[in-house]
Amino acid sequence: MTEKLFARLQEIYPELVTFRRDLHMYPELSFQEKETPRKVADFLTQLGLEVRTEVGGRGVMGILRGGKPGKTVAFRADFDALPIQDEKRVDYKSRIPGVMHACGHDIHTAALLGVAKVLSEVKDELEGNVIFIHQFAEEVIPGGAKAMIEDGCLSGVDVIYGAHVASHLPFGTVGVGEGHLMAAGDTFEIDIYGAGGHGATPHLTVDPLVVGSQILLNLQQIVSRRVDPLKPAVVTVGSFNGGEAYNVIPDTAKMKGTVRTFDKDVQDLIEKSIGQITAAACESAGASFQYKYERGYPSVWNHPEETKRIEQLAKKLFGDEKVGHEPPHMGMEDFSYYLQKVPGTFFWVGGRDEEGDKSYPHHHPKFDVDERAILTIGQLFVSACLNYISDGLVTPELQKEVGF
Amino acid sequence: MTEKLFARLQEIYPELVTFRRDLHMYPELSFQEKETPRKVADFLTQLGLEVRTEVGGRGVMGILRGGKPGKTVAFRADFDALPIQDEKRVDYKSRIPGVMHACGHDIHTAALLGVAKVLSEVKDELEGNVIFIHQFAEEVIPGGAKAMIEDGCLSGVDVIYGAHVASHLPFGTVGVGEGHLMAAGDTFEIDIYGAGGHGATPHLTVDPLVVGSQILLNLQQIVSRRVDPLKPAVVTVGSFNGGEAYNVIPDTAKMKGTVRTFDKDVQDLIEKSIGQITAAACESAGASFQYKYERGYPSVWNHPEETKRIEQLAKKLFGDEKVGHEPPHMGMEDFSYYLQKVPGTFFWVGGRDEEGDKSYPHHHPKFDVDERAILTIGQLFVSACLNYISDGLVTPELQKEVGF
Amino acid sequence: MTEKLFARLQEIYPELVTFRRDLHMYPELSFQEKETPRKVADFLTQLGLEVRTEVGGRGVMGILRGGKPGKTVAFRADFDALPIQDEKRVDYKSRIPGVMHACGHDIHTAALLGVAKVLSEVKDELEGNVIFIHQFAEEVIPGGAKAMIEDGCLSGVDVIYGAHVASHLPFGTVGVGEGHLMAAGDTFEIDIYGAGGHGATPHLTVDPLVVGSQILLNLQQIVSRRVDPLKPAVVTVGSFNGGEAYNVIPDTAKMKGTVRTFDKDVQDLIEKSIGQITAAACESAGASFQYKYERGYPSVWNHPEETKRIEQLAKKLFGDEKVGHEPPHMGMEDFSYYLQKVPGTFFWVGGRDEEGDKSYPHHHPKFDVDERAILTIGQLFVSACLNYISDGLVTPELQKEVGF
Amino acid sequence: MTEKLFARLQEIYPELVTFRRDLHMYPELSFQEKETPRKVADFLTQLGLEVRTEVGGRGVMGILRGGKPGKTVAFRADFDALPIQDEKRVDYKSRIPGVMHACGHDIHTAALLGVAKVLSEVKDELEGNVIFIHQFAEEVIPGGAKAMIEDGCLSGVDVIYGAHVASHLPFGTVGVGEGHLMAAGDTFEIDIYGAGGHGATPHLTVDPLVVGSQILLNLQQIVSRRVDPLKPAVVTVGSFNGGEAYNVIPDTAKMKGTVRTFDKDVQDLIEKSIGQITAAACESAGASFQYKYERGYPSVWNHPEETKRIEQLAKKLFGDEKVGHEPPHMGMEDFSYYLQKVPGTFFWVGGRDEEGDKSYPHHHPKFDVDERAILTIGQLFVSACLNYISDGLVTPELQKEVGF
Repeated sequence: MTEKLFARLQEIYPELVTFRRDLHMYPELSFQEKETPRKVADFLTQLGLEVRTEVGGRGVMGILRGGKPGKTVAFRADFDALPIQDEKRVDYKSRIPGVMHACGHDIHTAALLGVAKVLSEVKDELEGNVIFIHQFAEEVIPGGAKAMIEDGCLSGVDVIYGAHVASHLPFGTVGVGEGHLMAAGDTFEIDIYGAGGHGATPHLTVDPLVVGSQILLNLQQIVSRRVDPLKPAVVTVGSFNGGEAYNVIPDTAKMKGTVRTFDKDVQDLIEKSIGQITAAACESAGASFQYKYERGYPSVWNHPEETKRIEQLAKKLFGDEKVGHEPPHMGMEDFSYYLQKVPGTFFWVGGRDEEGDKSYPHHHPKFDVDERAILTIGQLFVSACLNYISDGLVTPELQKEVGF
Repeated sequence: MTEKLFARLQEIYPELVTFRRDLHMYPELSFQEKETPRKVADFLTQLGLEVRTEVGGRGVMGILRGGKPGKTVAFRADFDALPIQDEKRVDYKSRIPGVMHACGHDIHTAALLGVAKVLSEVKDELEGNVIFIHQFAEEVIPGGAKAMIEDGCLSGVDVIYGAHVASHLPFGTVGVGEGHLMAAGDTFEIDIYGAGGHGATPHLTVDPLVVGSQILLNLQQIVSRRVDPLKPAVVTVGSFNGGEAYNVIPDTAKMKGTVRTFDKDVQDLIEKSIGQITAAACESAGASFQYKYERGYPSVWNHPEETKRIEQLAKKLFGDEKVGHEPPHMGMEDFSYYLQKVPGTFFWVGGRDEEGDKSYPHHHPKFDVDERAILTIGQLFVSACLNYISDGLVTPELQKEVGF
Repeated sequence: MTEKLFARLQEIYPELVTFRRDLHMYPELSFQEKETPRKVADFLTQLGLEVRTEVGGRGVMGILRGGKPGKTVAFRADFDALPIQDEKRVDYKSRIPGVMHACGHDIHTAALLGVAKVLSEVKDELEGNVIFIHQFAEEVIPGGAKAMIEDGCLSGVDVIYGAHVASHLPFGTVGVGEGHLMAAGDTFEIDIYGAGGHGATPHLTVDPLVVGSQILLNLQQIVSRRVDPLKPAVVTVGSFNGGEAYNVIPDTAKMKGTVRTFDKDVQDLIEKSIGQITAAACESAGASFQYKYERGYPSVWNHPEETKRIEQLAKKLFGDEKVGHEPPHMGMEDFSYYLQKVPGTFFWVGGRDEEGDKSYPHHHPKFDVDERAILTIGQLFVSACLNYISDGLVTPELQKEVGF
Repeated sequence: MTEKLFARLQEIYPELVTFRRDLHMYPELSFQEKETPRKVADFLTQLGLEVRTEVGGRGVMGILRGGKPGKTVAFRADFDALPIQDEKRVDYKSRIPGVMHACGHDIHTAALLGVAKVLSEVKDELEGNVIFIHQFAEEVIPGGAKAMIEDGCLSGVDVIYGAHVASHLPFGTVGVGEGHLMAAGDTFEIDIYGAGGHGATPHLTVDPLVVGSQILLNLQQIVSRRVDPLKPAVVTVGSFNGGEAYNVIPDTAKMKGTVRTFDKDVQDLIEKSIGQITAAACESAGASFQYKYERGYPSVWNHPEETKRIEQLAKKLFGDEKVGHEPPHMGMEDFSYYLQKVPGTFFWVGGRDEEGDKSYPHHHPKFDVDERAILTIGQLFVSACLNYISDGLVTPELQKEVGF
């Protein structure tokens, strides 16, 4: 059956490209998606699937109930765009000023719709069900995943897969990684309230710039001294602003920053440590402060067995040399919420073309990818679905091995 | 003769108040003075004095040649206003939105015109000459003093006196101080050029906020370690700005600050030290930088003998208990340029009224002073003039004593 | 054959315990080993093996040439002791004041001699050769491994295994880890040469304590800002000393520290960064300095295939539940040098007893382990040897899998 | 009478030199003086003065009651030596190993005894009384002055004078200074209690060296930000010690330092600020600490009128060009305690010889001075005594002038 479905994917590929380019020309910002979910829902409806719209807000779900009883497999594709001006010179360039699919979510959406189309054609033979989760707002905290889960999109689901096209990997390759794949990303703000005054009389002031600099430097000790060196962590102050003049000590200074971690205990430790360091520096100097710490997406933790499954399937489909282990990286993804509920894995699919034209980093104004990544994703999703619900390519030995 | 002149000052006092209030209603910003110098020049011309306008730009000089040969005494009054919105409730409130005589320069001008008037009336008896320097732009570096001196306003001058009304001293009092009275005030700017990037990958960046914080803290060691503890100095960073986002390490950060010193060797040391500290922090981190240091007015150094003269005259005129020694303070004044050329002294004249209504600090939107300070200044200037050129109230013994 | 050899190990266990306790009673410090290598050489000679002494200085090699041609397998045990006073209450307590086998090297030695004995008994049947490397001076840089390798101890060797008894793992368990198991450990020294003087006149001095504190704090930024957050690293200053008096600024201050890394590029980066930070702080303040960085042992990098082999053998021998994956840790071992030359793996063997009496940390004055760990090591070494040279328990599939 | 006494001083000069050299050969440490006070008391007793010994511990007082009623003038000389090995090549070199008169107290003592001798010879003519205070333990806090005052040495005293020989001033010169002449000198100790551990696992420790470095750097902000820039202050950490090893984070670190100030409010502010800064850094990091601040001698504040008296007398005796105004300096002296009780002044007397052999700084192993400074001190003390109690060289005018 796999071969049949792969052939069908190949046949409908032009249609998927058309769909992708349409999304590309009319991108919509996170939490403002309107036409995109409508187009997705129309597509799924035409396949005869059961479709739910406004899931968790702006999400869309397609539900394919197989002809025979079995497991339920979910796939997720996100569909929001970014506030970036498209600078590419292609005819499918964004028509919306300042908005652009600069991360490849249009590719994800087209691929998942392709999977929905070909699987819906073999519906009766399917031993189990498939859930197509088309998610809004991946780019902006709090994201769409959490709301869609709360609205039931994982109900009955046994396993979930997600893929991300990657402009740093060549087309045709696949990158997998067990365990931590992407970091938890939090943000913080520190407002320091000193007491301003004339620059010539510092003793009559509480200088918030000196206090702030002290905090900023002491924050470096969190990673260097407080966090287990074997547990990756980043504490970055992205902005520090206070004062305008040469000779006036300002009343206040403000710092904003981000924290990246994989482990919750490290995350907790850092949240607490920033507070301690801030409080100490302020209290010592007689300043007051406000400290806010907001948790973003948790870290993406790939289940070993499902990661192994995708790795083996990818090797079988594309050859061993096309599949690599990707190290964890410090970016973030709200796919993590799904993986907190059900087993699954998130993986990378190469999108860089041979000429290297499509190698701009994600979020770059010239970002683009080889559209055939749609097929790579499609084939892996189809294989994973069939393998999980029926074929059982994962051997008992392997299952045991990866099951610790 | 002193008594006669004092009586005349008293008689013309209403006229001087009128003149002052006119200036107060129509203040002009530094380097933008147009009507003010015209009014001053008209007044001096009507006295029959030789008048030079556009001295060094917008300055005015009145030259009174006495009937008999003798020394040449100069007095200086500044006449520029500040970019502050007048919030007083008086009928002579500023008519110019956002501009205000919030430092008392209108008082200085009126007082000096009064002195010019009464002295011009005894011109023939005067053994010597008097120069009335009406200076523009005291409030804004590079100031008007330097340009007026270069344009010859001190030519032939033997001694110079200047006064400043003070809202922190009660009306009727006088504050004098030998040696350093006001600090040299310089400014500096440090631009740090790091290499921005994603907050999650600090190792791919050169973080200008960390570099900047280090510089800002290390600058504290200049005063604490490098400067002779017996020589007052201030190094203040008034603004530090870099970055806008939570998770983006910016490319650059900018610092602006002020330096206050009394001694040139300390000033030199600090200029050099800021550069060393900046260079070290940047080079160590792989950042580059631009460092600009601009010298403002030098410190005001009052000549002991002339300071003693004003002190003794003030005690004689107003009583010992009305005259105090003012400690040096860290503000600045371009009267310092005159004192680098000729002997002289700069002193404070009380302007706070008994009700305390006129006790707002200088540069405050409600700043005002007791207008009778015009008389105090006038009397001291007249006395100093007569004393210096003829009477010789300073005894030989005292001259010897203060002459070290 | 495995069963036969295991039975023999069991039979000679009392002899091995006796040997171990003798070493325990007469421990010898690193680079001072004299009797220990003699005892080991005697033991190996009595087995009829070819024995080399003074290998690389104080090391001993036993060479067992199998009756049939095949691969050459090496095992390594270290035999040096530590400068610690034994505080245990056992009859085999150290007789040498201030010297003690507080890390279990006596266990390693006894185990490897046991393996030598039982394998030498089946010499004729062996398809290949076995090298028994008894290493001196593991505890003290530069260690004995490097010198023994340079003296040829790995000549012709195809694979090497090493084991370390662990008081933090219960007896009967085995801990394995692919890739980085132990860190590279380097040391550094920074001497700061300021210019001392009276505490009341800091401006006449170059204060090495302020410079040193600045360096110490700035070193924190290496891990927090310069090193890839996904690559573990530690930079620790272990001592900072300068001055004795209250009111005298000293001439010099001295810092000593350690650096732990897994990747050579990180190690290089840190060595360079410490120098940059030191140079910047010193030059800025007018101090001079001396910076020495000495590389210790490289990181232990376990080859995946051989690690997998030990894991599978251990699971087979002791049960799956007895075998765990040990995370890398920041300690160091000169076993790393062997692994830079030939494939192999280093693993942990549990030594804590049920009563918990033998759970003191390594290098503790009361450190001891369950002596049966000798058998665990012996069995794993024997199994690994037979498996590697003949049986081939590692399946082709697995080899392929671990072969990336 | 002055001339007669000066002639007598000249006559007894050899005797005073002999006395001085005897003290020089047999110096005694602070709080251990035994023979020195005995010798002093013997000398005074032989003059027929009323002598009190063991005043406040080891002090000696000579009381000269004049033949006529009048004021009571006190003089003070200190007599303790320092723990320094004499490295001079003179025959009166110290015979006591490691103890030396390296500050000139032997000169002070000889001079004061000379004054006692010549004044006692004109006892009957004297209108008033003279108190000779021979003080122990000036060099070591808490000093002898406080105890001697508590024991009554200032009872009935109207004025007090003290002099210090100075190797940085040429013989024959005198240095005076109104107001603050010498600083208050306090000491502090900070013990930081972290939690040590292995250098490779900083997250399991509280690193006292990082905490200490932070404190040491933040202490720099006291002078740079908290203290009025017009008020001199020094905060110096003289020693910082923690740890011995490369790879062990120590449990504790210790800092010792000194504080120099002139104003009590600054002294209070600094004592409090050190505590705040220490507490903040420790609490933030989870360390505990002990902070001790011990006040040393207060600042020496010379009364203007008495300083003017010595200045004028010195100018009259030695010529105007021999008398200079000495700036305040940051050293300390327990003469301050006397000045807190009665008016008086402390002044410098030049001791450097023409060849410059005697120009080593005080507390140097080769320190020595031109012994004729004994005469300079003697003449000034005699003049001051006579002037104060009878002649009234200070004119009413001057008294008025200096009396603000």
